[in-house]
Amino acid sequence: MARGSKERLIRRADLDLPPNNPSIVGKVTGNEFSMNTHQRNLSASIDPVKLDRLAEVAVKVGLQLREGQDLLLTAPSAALPLVRRIAEHAYKAGAGIVTPFFSDEEVTLARYRFGHDAGFDRAAGWLYEGMAKAFSENTARLAIVGDNPMLLSGEDPGKVARASKANSKAYQPALEKIVNFDTNWNIIAYPSASWARQVFPDVAEDVAVAKLAEAIFAASRVDKDGAVAAWDKHNAVLRERTQWLNGQRFHALHYSAPGVDLTIGLADGHEWEGGASTAKNGITCNANIPTEEVFTTPHCRRVSGHVVSSKPLSYQGTLIDNIQVKFEEGRIVEAKASRGEEVLNKVLDTDEGARRLGEVALVPHSSPISKSGLLFFNTLFDENAASHIALGQCYSKCFIDGSKLTPQQIAAQGGNQSLIHIDWMIGSEATDIDGVHADGRRVPVFRKGEWA
Amino acid sequence: MARGSKERLIRRADLDLPPNNPSIVGKVTGNEFSMNTHQRNLSASIDPVKLDRLAEVAVKVGLQLREGQDLLLTAPSAALPLVRRIAEHAYKAGAGIVTPFFSDEEVTLARYRFGHDAGFDRAAGWLYEGMAKAFSENTARLAIVGDNPMLLSGEDPGKVARASKANSKAYQPALEKIVNFDTNWNIIAYPSASWARQVFPDVAEDVAVAKLAEAIFAASRVDKDGAVAAWDKHNAVLRERTQWLNGQRFHALHYSAPGVDLTIGLADGHEWEGGASTAKNGITCNANIPTEEVFTTPHCRRVSGHVVSSKPLSYQGTLIDNIQVKFEEGRIVEAKASRGEEVLNKVLDTDEGARRLGEVALVPHSSPISKSGLLFFNTLFDENAASHIALGQCYSKCFIDGSKLTPQQIAAQGGNQSLIHIDWMIGSEATDIDGVHADGRRVPVFRKGEWA
Repeated sequence: MARGSKERLIRRADLDLPPNNPSIVGKVTGNEFSMNTHQRNLSASIDPVKLDRLAEVAVKVGLQLREGQDLLLTAPSAALPLVRRIAEHAYKAGAGIVTPFFSDEEVTLARYRFGHDAGFDRAAGWLYEGMAKAFSENTARLAIVGDNPMLLSGEDPGKVARASKANSKAYQPALEKIVNFDTNWNIIAYPSASWARQVFPDVAEDVAVAKLAEAIFAASRVDKDGAVAAWDKHNAVLRERTQWLNGQRFHALHYSAPGVDLTIGLADGHEWEGGASTAKNGITCNANIPTEEVFTTPHCRRVSGHVVSSKPLSYQGTLIDNIQVKFEEGRIVEAKASRGEEVLNKVLDTDEGARRLGEVALVPHSSPISKSGLLFFNTLFDENAASHIALGQCYSKCFIDGSKLTPQQIAAQGGNQSLIHIDWMIGSEATDIDGVHADGRRVPVFRKGEWA
Repeated sequence: MARGSKERLIRRADLDLPPNNPSIVGKVTGNEFSMNTHQRNLSASIDPVKLDRLAEVAVKVGLQLREGQDLLLTAPSAALPLVRRIAEHAYKAGAGIVTPFFSDEEVTLARYRFGHDAGFDRAAGWLYEGMAKAFSENTARLAIVGDNPMLLSGEDPGKVARASKANSKAYQPALEKIVNFDTNWNIIAYPSASWARQVFPDVAEDVAVAKLAEAIFAASRVDKDGAVAAWDKHNAVLRERTQWLNGQRFHALHYSAPGVDLTIGLADGHEWEGGASTAKNGITCNANIPTEEVFTTPHCRRVSGHVVSSKPLSYQGTLIDNIQVKFEEGRIVEAKASRGEEVLNKVLDTDEGARRLGEVALVPHSSPISKSGLLFFNTLFDENAASHIALGQCYSKCFIDGSKLTPQQIAAQGGNQSLIHIDWMIGSEATDIDGVHADGRRVPVFRKGEWA
């Protein structure tokens, strides 16, 4: 799914504070902030009306920010124009205090290039602790993604991994409050130049930024007037899907496609989620903008068969392509990839839970992001292009009364536990999915990549 | 003095985090970050070699950053180019983690223009608490100043005052660790466009930025090669002055000039400071760059006579000019100003300590900043143009063994206590100052504005 999953991603990429962007993974050759007089102003490539609409949707739909609520916001430095629009909408909505934190790609790179070795096992714990405190005090959370997905791909992978681990540990208490929806939160994207160059490598930088901006605006449903109403409608469609699935109470899903024969058991007491969710503070938020998926928790000991990835996975600057894995009793017992296999196997060795599933998500092949044909190198978008599964940590939200379950109960019901949560795409136009009841009865869910 | 004083200023201006810039005080009409394609790139107006040298001096002289030390850095968003240079020098010096926080003038203004009234009595306490924790864990502190000094001058003064008070309270525990030099800290300046327009209102913006940049570089002694050595020499000169003054142990200073007949008693056990100071973590830092002053703590109950300001005071967007005050037994009993008198009197009514002195500082009239003839609207510079006094809080550092004294002992020795600390200039080319010993013996200290 996206919320947790995105937040998991956040832990490693987007939420990492300035010094610590360890998981975004190329070289930065320029930046609109430090451009010289001969460069075009890239933010001029971004439609200001749509940008403002994205800010409005983030505040009114993504967060549903309440009067008096504080807002903690993280963003790449390039996203300053969007941060300004968000601050205005947030204050108009009654925000108490809006506190933005900016990360900067050059500052992050300075650490990897010049920092002494001993520093890579440390994190700014005082800051992460403060964030946990803010979330426990009902502060809403907005993350703007947009860093170069290849930022750290040229840096020492050992240092990247160590810094990532140190941050993960330090951020854990704050992350749990997000993953468990203690407060309302939302992730949106800004078309920064360094990201746009990765997605559109063959065009001029200003053209790339304009193209990525339009792709983000369309996927985020802010390309037309009436964006807030469009989101209400979209949420209603997703709710209809989750209600049907929750009514069915499938024991398992069976996937078949060329190279795919996979049975994914669903966790006992699993609940399907999609679109808007109500956080524990009573506020209904859309944690991911865009979002097209419905998702739930698989049973981490009841997955068997084999599956291949339908799209490349961009992980910390490495493209992992044509993943082929075999599951036995929930566990990946064989893993191959035509590219990035070594990184894949390192990931699987992170901990015991890294070889088991924590999420299963359904996305029709006709989703707008799939139809765009773009690889965004960012899970916020790419996971909404196809049905997917995620290795690693599950989300308590995807259980009936999940907020009341202990970690032990969640584990007993089949929920997986891990330091990682990595989504990868398995759906295509050839994917058939059956819902399988406990008595063996089968109900068509997807046929040829679309809802049956 | 500067350290504490600057840090006091920081509390109200520079250290305020994004939402909370309550004391910087005009309208922002543009910004190099959001410039359109027709605007020049302002950072092109800033000499990159000198900017890098400023970053190097901040790290090596200002902070003397130690290997393994973390660094917490605050800066206006416009100062990103300097932050990047500092991050590189800090990591090369062995910094553990460099954590920059950026404030943004437009985000700050959004709060005053659109924020609901109830929010102005609150602060992001979790963040200030985190900063206090960082300082207690030996994190070094660097503040880059450069916001438009008139930023909030068009906003509701009541809201500005309320937000300022809420921030002051929340920041107090962190501020105390800075004021008391628990860790090494430093303040430097960046020539942001909004500030440059205030200092040079009659020239094109790029010219204003270039002029302010050169003025900052010259005052900060980074306009030539060998800046680190130049600072060593400058520190030695200031040390010679403080050693002489500390050897004299004056009971009081007597000021005379046209309109000035003022006796400032010095606190019992006062100690003169200037240039480099050794923080409690054992690191010798230069808290202010630039700095030209030597300073100590006056006795808050032994000040008498009358004095006039020699330069205008820029306070939260208001210029207060031709201040005339009369002291009796340490307390201001009459205060007038040709401009900004109402604001002056509000300031004096802040609390009991606001009418008494917390600092006395000596700066020769021939100081480079004085010779520049510029009014920077920023205490970091303006206080180094002339001998000055400060209303409000004193600094424990300016007592013999000050770090071991309790607040009660400091008060008994004549140290003042207040929420404010505001420096204003009283020195000119006509200022004579005598040091007065307890037995009435007088020693010339300044004649015609210069060291005697």
